[in-house]
Amino acid sequence: MKISARNVLKGKVVSVEKGATTAHVKIEIAGGQLVTASITNESVDSLKLTVGGEAYAVVKSSDVLVAVD
Amino acid sequence: MKISARNVLKGKVVSVEKGATTAHVKIEIAGGQLVTASITNESVDSLKLTVGGEAYAVVKSSDVLVAVD
Amino acid sequence: MKISARNVLKGKVVSVEKGATTAHVKIEIAGGQLVTASITNESVDSLKLTVGGEAYAVVKSSDVLVAVD
Amino acid sequence: MKISARNVLKGKVVSVEKGATTAHVKIEIAGGQLVTASITNESVDSLKLTVGGEAYAVVKSSDVLVAVD
Amino acid sequence: MKISARNVLKGKVVSVEKGATTAHVKIEIAGGQLVTASITNESVDSLKLTVGGEAYAVVKSSDVLVAVD
Amino acid sequence: MKISARNVLKGKVVSVEKGATTAHVKIEIAGGQLVTASITNESVDSLKLTVGGEAYAVVKSSDVLVAVD
Repeated sequence: MKISARNVLKGKVVSVEKGATTAHVKIEIAGGQLVTASITNESVDSLKLTVGGEAYAVVKSSDVLVAVD
Repeated sequence: MKISARNVLKGKVVSVEKGATTAHVKIEIAGGQLVTASITNESVDSLKLTVGGEAYAVVKSSDVLVAVD
Repeated sequence: MKISARNVLKGKVVSVEKGATTAHVKIEIAGGQLVTASITNESVDSLKLTVGGEAYAVVKSSDVLVAVD
Repeated sequence: MKISARNVLKGKVVSVEKGATTAHVKIEIAGGQLVTASITNESVDSLKLTVGGEAYAVVKSSDVLVAVD
Repeated sequence: MKISARNVLKGKVVSVEKGATTAHVKIEIAGGQLVTASITNESVDSLKLTVGGEAYAVVKSSDVLVAVD
Repeated sequence: MKISARNVLKGKVVSVEKGATTAHVKIEIAGGQLVTASITNESVDSLKLTVGGEAYAVVKSSDVLVAVD
């Protein structure tokens, strides 16, 4: 499947923390930066996300804000 | 100002394309990856975004999807 | 690629309207309902979206509101 | 109240799962497809959402991604 | 229609600027603050939004970030 | 840090409710209206949000819907 999202950042899962319904997944992308995703527990199970696995952080460009110092 | 967004990726603006009301800004972050932001023309002016300037791509974690191959 | 988004609705593209930077794509999903997506012109080109083609409308569950009469 | 969201999909609530603060509501829309919404527990109470009730899944078009096979 | 969004801020439309596909609507809410909404031109027409009219700015709580000085 | 989001509403934190992973923060803005933000517990800690403190509710204009009666 190919997706319209302009931002597809490849990385490695470094943590998966399930809550009651919502999970936080941290992915280390190129350059060593961490990206945190807040997704459903159901998605974690469905994608079989586990620490050490490869994954992509995917972001629609309309969800990216820009900041300057 | 400090923001709740978990993802604040530092980089350099590599392109700014204004449309009629909406602009696309591309930021090269660490690791050489491009992040595209779709923001208002008004924001581009307000932040004085120009090619070559430093900027951050900011994403709320609830706006990050995860994908696997 | 498998995505965490819980909502992946299969359909057929019924219109593609490009703006200056932002395009509107309408997809007819099962049951005959139309779903409108606002994506970058760049994505339309990248996915080669054309009227009559198959496509999926993909929505993260945190982006779904619920309403009642 | 009439809303700007282009996507208002009528259906029936098939499950409501409350978490600590965030609930997952599944709505079966026309064509038999399920749409999952992640909303606050507070909203579930405020709308009195219960299994079997009619409800709409509402999505702003800038929150719809498009994918192709 | 009653909506799950926790934030429904009543106000008055103070400007409507249509672009090629995307419009910017500014609503003055209580306290004199302006809220800018980026919606489709189609929605502007559908809701018959005009300067001086009453309108609500509606925001899902998962789309609200928090910042401190 | 200056942010592209067009909506930065100053207020006072009136409640902070942590869930398993996701917190709900209510901010009273000018005019006495409450804005609810759904953010990570981690952000609450990172920004040291506490009842009575000053804070801003920040919303990207593409996340604002418009409604009329």
